[in-house]
Amino acid sequence: MEPTAETLARWAHDYAPSAADLDLAQRSLLDTIAVTLAARQDDLVALSAGLPDAARWAAVGHVLDFDDLHLESTTHISVVCVPATLAVGGDARAYLAGAGMMARLGVALGWSHYAGGWHATCTAGAPAAAVSASVALGLSAERIATAIALSVPAAGGVQRAFGSAGKSLQVGFAADAGVRAARLAAAGATADPTALDAWLRLVGGDPDRIDVTGPAVPGGLAIKIFPCCYALQRPISALREHLPADVVASGITAIEVSTPEGAVQPLIHHRPRTGLQGKFSLEYAIAAALLDPHPGFGSFTDLAVTRPEAQRLLQLVAVTETPGGDGLLSGRIDITLTLSGGARYSVSQRLPPGSPGRPPSDQDLRAKIADCGPDVPALLTGLDWARAATLLADHLPGQRSGLT
Amino acid sequence: MEPTAETLARWAHDYAPSAADLDLAQRSLLDTIAVTLAARQDDLVALSAGLPDAARWAAVGHVLDFDDLHLESTTHISVVCVPATLAVGGDARAYLAGAGMMARLGVALGWSHYAGGWHATCTAGAPAAAVSASVALGLSAERIATAIALSVPAAGGVQRAFGSAGKSLQVGFAADAGVRAARLAAAGATADPTALDAWLRLVGGDPDRIDVTGPAVPGGLAIKIFPCCYALQRPISALREHLPADVVASGITAIEVSTPEGAVQPLIHHRPRTGLQGKFSLEYAIAAALLDPHPGFGSFTDLAVTRPEAQRLLQLVAVTETPGGDGLLSGRIDITLTLSGGARYSVSQRLPPGSPGRPPSDQDLRAKIADCGPDVPALLTGLDWARAATLLADHLPGQRSGLT
Repeated sequence: MEPTAETLARWAHDYAPSAADLDLAQRSLLDTIAVTLAARQDDLVALSAGLPDAARWAAVGHVLDFDDLHLESTTHISVVCVPATLAVGGDARAYLAGAGMMARLGVALGWSHYAGGWHATCTAGAPAAAVSASVALGLSAERIATAIALSVPAAGGVQRAFGSAGKSLQVGFAADAGVRAARLAAAGATADPTALDAWLRLVGGDPDRIDVTGPAVPGGLAIKIFPCCYALQRPISALREHLPADVVASGITAIEVSTPEGAVQPLIHHRPRTGLQGKFSLEYAIAAALLDPHPGFGSFTDLAVTRPEAQRLLQLVAVTETPGGDGLLSGRIDITLTLSGGARYSVSQRLPPGSPGRPPSDQDLRAKIADCGPDVPALLTGLDWARAATLLADHLPGQRSGLT
Repeated sequence: MEPTAETLARWAHDYAPSAADLDLAQRSLLDTIAVTLAARQDDLVALSAGLPDAARWAAVGHVLDFDDLHLESTTHISVVCVPATLAVGGDARAYLAGAGMMARLGVALGWSHYAGGWHATCTAGAPAAAVSASVALGLSAERIATAIALSVPAAGGVQRAFGSAGKSLQVGFAADAGVRAARLAAAGATADPTALDAWLRLVGGDPDRIDVTGPAVPGGLAIKIFPCCYALQRPISALREHLPADVVASGITAIEVSTPEGAVQPLIHHRPRTGLQGKFSLEYAIAAALLDPHPGFGSFTDLAVTRPEAQRLLQLVAVTETPGGDGLLSGRIDITLTLSGGARYSVSQRLPPGSPGRPPSDQDLRAKIADCGPDVPALLTGLDWARAATLLADHLPGQRSGLT
């Protein structure tokens, strides 16, 4: 049987994007650059200043956890593939080739891989970044397969990093590993394409799930409305959309949540004390949704997470996880609040806004971009791939440019 | 239970080397620099010129597959820990701390991890390089544990890379990932030390096997006498030491080999056509041992591997693998040759020269260093850690120096 790396490399090399693919690429570029610029003041900017372009741009792009997600593979696709593309001067086609690789490889890795604790954005991300960078460099299908093999040793990362700088840094490492692999393949390095299949087997993946038909990114991408883990978009929107506006948080005495266990897999922080931990806390997200009219950047600071009222509310949350679920939008979430007077309110949600089944409107996107900084809408007007690279280089300058 | 990363970080931080440890460190430094300088003319030097110091030095140091090995963990320790130490100005204690980490983590990963197809030199190597670099940078035990966690996403690599540039490159990636992690930890990056345990479980390791007693490197290190996979040291030495000198290769009509299957785990190339593949071919190693008085660098070139007589001989080899074995020196190897006249010769070997049970003499080491290049003995006279870094920087100059 043909090595999976060769099948995917040939697909990536030959793929001709449709108009819908190019629309998705443009929306991904806008969304990714917006959320990256939104993080310009984050501590991670100084921390990552010595890393190569792709690593630095991806890490900063991911630190707010506001970037897009591919639901079928549970991977953040654009924050890996946009920086890998831009670091070597690529365009929409290079991005789409990597994004398509990441979606397909992520599906081959499967839910069990993610549920086991691997951070699929990194494990599927390194080979995907290799594909984006390889296509940007104009490599042959054979050389793309070599780059994929050279990225395999960097295809790691576990969910225990969630809630620390380690999460966004490991996403940066994955993006950079792909660029490094592509440049080494371009320079003539040899590697065995069957490395991908050997690795897939070791991390619980199944190459038989690879399907190279369909659009560039089968299933599309989910755009986040709230700057936190995707698994929190649904509980937050459930409360914000369906709870009567006159319910006062201070009167709440009990909070019962029922959710499929798969839908809360990444939510590992039950008693968060920092903003980063709050982004991976079901309990805190419910508190924030009850306290803040639109949980935004201000809701995920250390100060916001340690608000006494937020800490009181999050300790009221009792979660019942129903068995099963194979994705972050499996089934539905039910939340019931009890007030001190005995009144009870229940809300349910299946699809949060921004998910492929409820795509964001142009107005939603404009509002999100505006939230990313007062100068961001103007900076992104008429954005294309070449100008995006210049924008990142100007706003996130680094100490070295990587292999050239 | 305390996270394994914290236990190992505290051991590394507090470890006080004995005189025997320091002797081992000095021998490792000499052997590693000698085999690195021996590769100065390899294609990999140009290929890796754009990589940071630790990556470049480790990749070139490993490309001849002539560097030392820790048998209990099946990892090449020094080619990871020496470059990681030198890249940040460290000394013997930094090297020994990383080497001890690598030996212990490799044992926790265990034979099943290696036999499954992971390249343990890379998987145990990235966290070990993080420890060497962290100790060299003078980090606290808490910061060393953070560096270990930040190296976890780069702790990958599979044996399918054996026989291609991918093998030495992925060793370089592991060394560099450790240096990167240590510098990020020094700069204040946060990460969760429990990431190491989460990852260990995913790759088949067992934290209960960690034992922080004993010398820096329990079991010691095996020094190679022949520049190829460690699994070939025994078959080559079996023939070179025990076969009568008057057996003429051209008269051989059959070659039977019996070996525990564990002892030939990395030998994945049965019909090699390149020098790199020949380094991972039991069949070719037997041919080379029959044709060449001392199988050295000249035996592992593309030209040597494709010699018609070598190709004839390697196709005569019939291997019987006996079940089991949990290391490259498990049990013993038996080789029986049949000559055209009907005569049969049998040889057996348990321990090759250079293994901890048959340590190399000073004369063996001097001869090996001399083999590494006519100028190498003089270059290495009175070698210490500071001068070793200068030597590598002078002989393997790079295009960037990495994070500073």
